Amino acid sequence: MSLFLRSIKNVKKLHFRSIATNSSYAAKPLLTVDLTKPPFEQPIPLHNRWHPDIPPIVSVKPGEIFRVECVDWTGGQIQNSDIADDVKNVDLTQIHYLTGPIEVNGAKPGDVLIVDILDVGPLARCMWGFTGIFDHANGGGFLTDYYKEARKAIWDFSGIYATSRHIEGVRFAGLTHPGLIGCAPSQKLLDQWNRREQELISSHQCKNKSHIVAQPPQEKGSLLGTIDRQSSLWKRVANEGARTIPPREHGGNCDIKNISRGSKIYFPVYVDGARLSVGDIHFSQGDGEISFCGAIEMSGYVDMHIQVMKDGMNKLKMKNPLFQPGPVEPRYSKCVTFQGISVDDNGKQYFLDANVAYMQACLSAIRYLTRFGYTEEQAYLILSAAPIEGRISSIVDIPNACCTLTLPTDIFSFDIQPEAIPETKAR
Amino acid sequence: MSLFLRSIKNVKKLHFRSIATNSSYAAKPLLTVDLTKPPFEQPIPLHNRWHPDIPPIVSVKPGEIFRVECVDWTGGQIQNSDIADDVKNVDLTQIHYLTGPIEVNGAKPGDVLIVDILDVGPLARCMWGFTGIFDHANGGGFLTDYYKEARKAIWDFSGIYATSRHIEGVRFAGLTHPGLIGCAPSQKLLDQWNRREQELISSHQCKNKSHIVAQPPQEKGSLLGTIDRQSSLWKRVANEGARTIPPREHGGNCDIKNISRGSKIYFPVYVDGARLSVGDIHFSQGDGEISFCGAIEMSGYVDMHIQVMKDGMNKLKMKNPLFQPGPVEPRYSKCVTFQGISVDDNGKQYFLDANVAYMQACLSAIRYLTRFGYTEEQAYLILSAAPIEGRISSIVDIPNACCTLTLPTDIFSFDIQPEAIPETKAR
Amino acid sequence: MSLFLRSIKNVKKLHFRSIATNSSYAAKPLLTVDLTKPPFEQPIPLHNRWHPDIPPIVSVKPGEIFRVECVDWTGGQIQNSDIADDVKNVDLTQIHYLTGPIEVNGAKPGDVLIVDILDVGPLARCMWGFTGIFDHANGGGFLTDYYKEARKAIWDFSGIYATSRHIEGVRFAGLTHPGLIGCAPSQKLLDQWNRREQELISSHQCKNKSHIVAQPPQEKGSLLGTIDRQSSLWKRVANEGARTIPPREHGGNCDIKNISRGSKIYFPVYVDGARLSVGDIHFSQGDGEISFCGAIEMSGYVDMHIQVMKDGMNKLKMKNPLFQPGPVEPRYSKCVTFQGISVDDNGKQYFLDANVAYMQACLSAIRYLTRFGYTEEQAYLILSAAPIEGRISSIVDIPNACCTLTLPTDIFSFDIQPEAIPETKAR
Amino acid sequence: MSLFLRSIKNVKKLHFRSIATNSSYAAKPLLTVDLTKPPFEQPIPLHNRWHPDIPPIVSVKPGEIFRVECVDWTGGQIQNSDIADDVKNVDLTQIHYLTGPIEVNGAKPGDVLIVDILDVGPLARCMWGFTGIFDHANGGGFLTDYYKEARKAIWDFSGIYATSRHIEGVRFAGLTHPGLIGCAPSQKLLDQWNRREQELISSHQCKNKSHIVAQPPQEKGSLLGTIDRQSSLWKRVANEGARTIPPREHGGNCDIKNISRGSKIYFPVYVDGARLSVGDIHFSQGDGEISFCGAIEMSGYVDMHIQVMKDGMNKLKMKNPLFQPGPVEPRYSKCVTFQGISVDDNGKQYFLDANVAYMQACLSAIRYLTRFGYTEEQAYLILSAAPIEGRISSIVDIPNACCTLTLPTDIFSFDIQPEAIPETKAR
Repeated sequence: MSLFLRSIKNVKKLHFRSIATNSSYAAKPLLTVDLTKPPFEQPIPLHNRWHPDIPPIVSVKPGEIFRVECVDWTGGQIQNSDIADDVKNVDLTQIHYLTGPIEVNGAKPGDVLIVDILDVGPLARCMWGFTGIFDHANGGGFLTDYYKEARKAIWDFSGIYATSRHIEGVRFAGLTHPGLIGCAPSQKLLDQWNRREQELISSHQCKNKSHIVAQPPQEKGSLLGTIDRQSSLWKRVANEGARTIPPREHGGNCDIKNISRGSKIYFPVYVDGARLSVGDIHFSQGDGEISFCGAIEMSGYVDMHIQVMKDGMNKLKMKNPLFQPGPVEPRYSKCVTFQGISVDDNGKQYFLDANVAYMQACLSAIRYLTRFGYTEEQAYLILSAAPIEGRISSIVDIPNACCTLTLPTDIFSFDIQPEAIPETKAR
Repeated sequence: MSLFLRSIKNVKKLHFRSIATNSSYAAKPLLTVDLTKPPFEQPIPLHNRWHPDIPPIVSVKPGEIFRVECVDWTGGQIQNSDIADDVKNVDLTQIHYLTGPIEVNGAKPGDVLIVDILDVGPLARCMWGFTGIFDHANGGGFLTDYYKEARKAIWDFSGIYATSRHIEGVRFAGLTHPGLIGCAPSQKLLDQWNRREQELISSHQCKNKSHIVAQPPQEKGSLLGTIDRQSSLWKRVANEGARTIPPREHGGNCDIKNISRGSKIYFPVYVDGARLSVGDIHFSQGDGEISFCGAIEMSGYVDMHIQVMKDGMNKLKMKNPLFQPGPVEPRYSKCVTFQGISVDDNGKQYFLDANVAYMQACLSAIRYLTRFGYTEEQAYLILSAAPIEGRISSIVDIPNACCTLTLPTDIFSFDIQPEAIPETKAR
Repeated sequence: MSLFLRSIKNVKKLHFRSIATNSSYAAKPLLTVDLTKPPFEQPIPLHNRWHPDIPPIVSVKPGEIFRVECVDWTGGQIQNSDIADDVKNVDLTQIHYLTGPIEVNGAKPGDVLIVDILDVGPLARCMWGFTGIFDHANGGGFLTDYYKEARKAIWDFSGIYATSRHIEGVRFAGLTHPGLIGCAPSQKLLDQWNRREQELISSHQCKNKSHIVAQPPQEKGSLLGTIDRQSSLWKRVANEGARTIPPREHGGNCDIKNISRGSKIYFPVYVDGARLSVGDIHFSQGDGEISFCGAIEMSGYVDMHIQVMKDGMNKLKMKNPLFQPGPVEPRYSKCVTFQGISVDDNGKQYFLDANVAYMQACLSAIRYLTRFGYTEEQAYLILSAAPIEGRISSIVDIPNACCTLTLPTDIFSFDIQPEAIPETKAR
Repeated sequence: MSLFLRSIKNVKKLHFRSIATNSSYAAKPLLTVDLTKPPFEQPIPLHNRWHPDIPPIVSVKPGEIFRVECVDWTGGQIQNSDIADDVKNVDLTQIHYLTGPIEVNGAKPGDVLIVDILDVGPLARCMWGFTGIFDHANGGGFLTDYYKEARKAIWDFSGIYATSRHIEGVRFAGLTHPGLIGCAPSQKLLDQWNRREQELISSHQCKNKSHIVAQPPQEKGSLLGTIDRQSSLWKRVANEGARTIPPREHGGNCDIKNISRGSKIYFPVYVDGARLSVGDIHFSQGDGEISFCGAIEMSGYVDMHIQVMKDGMNKLKMKNPLFQPGPVEPRYSKCVTFQGISVDDNGKQYFLDANVAYMQACLSAIRYLTRFGYTEEQAYLILSAAPIEGRISSIVDIPNACCTLTLPTDIFSFDIQPEAIPETKAR
């Protein structure tokens, strides 16, 4: 008899600092959504506000591997259609339906929750996504002063690739990731958030009433998991619960494209049980997510493995989350890089302003892409959705910041290099 | 009203040489297996021989995107257990159960079939695989003179990663691929195969009767799709049908790790309808697949997109398949590379023999890994299954070929670089 | 006789859009510096202001390949010593001594100058460089509110690698590049620069007189190539000539680490002959160049190949330069990524401010590195000089921008991953 | 006063396992060649045989960083011309003039010599190289049965890139490396080499007298460093000294393209002082170096750093050298991969023969490239010189080995992908 174990008897125990190796099963389906139903009728209670008093809907032990599913960030407000009215009219009080909170046994405030993103992808029953330019009236995106009207592109997923019937000649591999993930804040942290954001709103309102700079807690549209809609708790949580649009210290809606398949994230824990929530899955996104609804937005799943580092916040001197990117990010070696400086289109000089500089880099890329027959809006959507790199290249050379946008050329089915002679010229 | 299409009216039609963009659905499940049943009782008729007269079981049109499922190469002979008897006793007449043939409408001899591997992965209902060292009595592997006894490692899949309870301290991202894929041979090509392989067998038998150099057609174990078991056709096809172990001009069991997610393969077409078959899915494999059952073998799915290049064999001057690797191969920047030359362990000099040189490189890597507490058999299994690179570095410097084996260090959870002081020393 | 040319007679002429292939010589030494002399006594007349009337000192034809040498950006103000007084006292009116202008025959306003950076490196006679933290009194760097005192690290170059006696345990391959490169502005463009920067200065002075936001033209310290010091032209150019610190539309001091070996840049041409100048060579730099004197600053050479694209600015719809990165950027697959949001250390909320967010990411990385025994100043210098990636990850999620800093772990000689137990703990 | 050292006083000493950081100078020019003189008149005594009794010509201490220069492998037999007669007539008794031996103080048999290849490149005074197809009469290359006549391509170096006036449309970054490097053998090891190679020669002569399988020691052409030409020692060493063509256990002419800039090699030490020699610098090479004189051959320099690992051969269980590749290998993400199996062009079946399989992959690539107007000889030279990957993909699937050749498409200035319509067609 040939017994394998006999041969490994003498193997010295090696320190393995990663995932436990004794499981033979796929990620356990822990939380599952029903795409035929609206967010507030899901089989699992979702939530769309951050608050320490939203009760966990499930518990896991450190070391567990499990799958959670998430609805798209709008909870189904956007259709697979050729009209952008739905993007124009998105109700922002009713977004970012999160799956969770997931309680992690033994996690305590001050610990760090280590989350392996073992896999992440679209749901087989919904193999498409969308990228939208938000309407100026609804807040717009990074370039809303240039592109004010709502637009939409639908993307179809074919295995690892996305293509769009609205943007011909583009095809790229997804750098799929959850846009939104993090642990629940403590009451103290939540109070800080609300205070500082209210201060911004207040100071801003003095100057310009029309432009929205932050979204305060709002009862309308609140979905609060298992909390009884009629209870006083509901009312308090709805009126205190932090809105989900911004990233914050706990992670949240950080929209970082590199928190992708195989990455490992280290989250601060603020409450007993950590209470991890996740949502807003992106098939792909460019740095900046510039058109606001700028990733390829979709419903999806995340396979996770959870560990706890005791006293980790102190050990890692952590304030914001850390992560380690995964090994399978799409690799494109040939690129064109666009520069921008902190002088706006009107020739106004700003002081080391990375926002202005990145905006200029984006505009340069957009105008460049029109050489090949794209409309500016299509180019804007490409830069939002494709895995472009947006870098702060220099931020000290007064008065100009320099930002760059790096566009992989191999995501196009034709040559977009500077020497290329656009085929459209020939017609 | 904000109509997206209005804004794209002026877009010039760009030549898109890739995948059609008008689909909104996942890969259509075309051929599905039942893992609770043996290969010869599957809902779809499988086959394990190559012959032009095995009828197609399904038809597709160029441009279609679809999913096929495949059973593992042994058709379930190997268990998720800690004993290697099953590897020892694999019946090689009953292997490589292929899914297909798939008829492609309009494909003609001389054309090239372009197959996009849009995605490939394990079946959610079977998230484990195995790597085996074949027993010397059953043919063995590349190093069978060194490691004669059957061994087995079971791997668990956690998202993109594999780990094994039989090989601690190793974890890597899959470079998942079909080991076996290709179109049916013409009768003429099949005859060539049988003739040349029989010549090898015959010439070899003069020298050494005991060692098997090739497997001739054999009725025993034949599974021939929809052909009636009692018909004379069955008997003829079984006695002519090429065995599936070797790669040949049509592709076949090429076991190339880089035909992975997102790759695109160009296959010669020899018969009307091309008759594509696929099987033997690998979660991962090292170059050489050195232990014979050397990849992480599993059941799995492949999502494909099919196109036809008319008269492609002539256009591409093609004899063997070509392919373009995909963009998401796991990336490991830190490695140790082992060299081997064509002098064997007994000090015998061979003339520019890449086999001997690569064997020496493999042995060097195996012996090196024992520093860290692995048995030689475990190291052999690691090199078989992990995405190592095996290169023919120089093949002209008489009398020594030089081959190299490059081992990524980051697949280990501890430091295996040369300067590392093995932790086991401390004990 | 075996005549090679006979065999290639039938080769069809292929369109080669790149470098001419008929040269057999190294880059021609075109402009050479003398490191034993101060900037104003060089064998070639340098300049440190941008102005269209600074005469070219040499002419080249499109297609030429040549080498130019450059002194370090301070013109020798910094010593290879262990004291940072020289950094503290840098005279910013006397910096960025540029090599050029180089006249390109036939280049006209509206054209694009295509510059291949064929190679770039340190001068063999000066194989060290420096990174400095600027003193708050002298303008400081990105984190000057945190690290106010001048600091310095000297780096030694060993082939492709840099190490520093002031920062142990770090070694990385250079991503060598010219920090400063571009064509001369037209008078009209120069006037725009001066006007917009003066407006910034003026508006700022109302608020805060002490902080310098931009450097206006200044006669003091001007070095103006071959213009006679006593002429009225000198006086005019000195009083109009743009200072060299900021990047601008023409490129200039863009400090982009990826304009490295093998890259290709497309510059707008504003004046007849283009008048290209270059200087401020960096052995390496992190995105942001955050400590101001933040790259590894050195004297060096650049090998260039020049082409002209007629009417290129129009063809490429170009306002700022474009470039294509080269194929030999150092590759490090394992990283730790730090996040920052636009809330400062005092808890103040900013509106989508990438500067604040990137500052927070930098501070997180710095504090993290102190785990391993580095001072915060040393960590600041590491992030300035090593090839870290600084990204604008999301810039639309009101009110928080999210920026990330990605630090390759393999540039350290010990494990800096989050799970690592710092060795210093053991002592 | 701002003293840097003050701020780093508290830095804990970190274990730095790499290069000492206390040097401020470039690699010391240790051994320099004169390209105007033939090999036997060099200012430093070269050698072209391996023997333990060739005396070292210089000593270094562990930790030293130094530069050595090497003449091209033919010692100047090849001209920068358009005629291949010089390649046809290369005298193989007079090749591989090595720089060394370099004595390393304290190195003992059984130790491992750690050599950092800090940098490697062409000599500024000779910026061209050559690739040759060897004539069948002079031994030929890997495909000598197909391409029997001598051919030559001259390459010009422009910074990191090579181009050839004999092969239009190709340009790539060098993966520069020493083809030949290693320590002197002990007398015992030398005796083994001579014995085993003589056995091969003897056994071969029985079969086929005309084909050379190995080169025995030969007095003619011997160059033996400082040994007196008239001494009996000279005669003995010349008649025992191993020829330099093959790679062997000590490294030697391994021709591995990845021993490039920034790599680190671990060599076995067999004699006191190690006696390291190096030569045969390649600007670039493809895996296999298939046309024999297949790299871009040139004179060049190597900057090295030397360390000794005591008892390293035992610690690393080493027989052949190991190495760690460097971080700046050229990166090309888009490729075409060609497959070959162990059936030759006559349809003869070989048993798992990687040589035959790789030959078929090479032939497939060559024939494919003729689509674009190249002659087969030009394509052969491209595959020899460009950084192609040659892999042993599967070596266990009886009777066919499968080897692959991966060709980066971005080294061509036009599209060579399968779908590309060759421009030559249009004419």
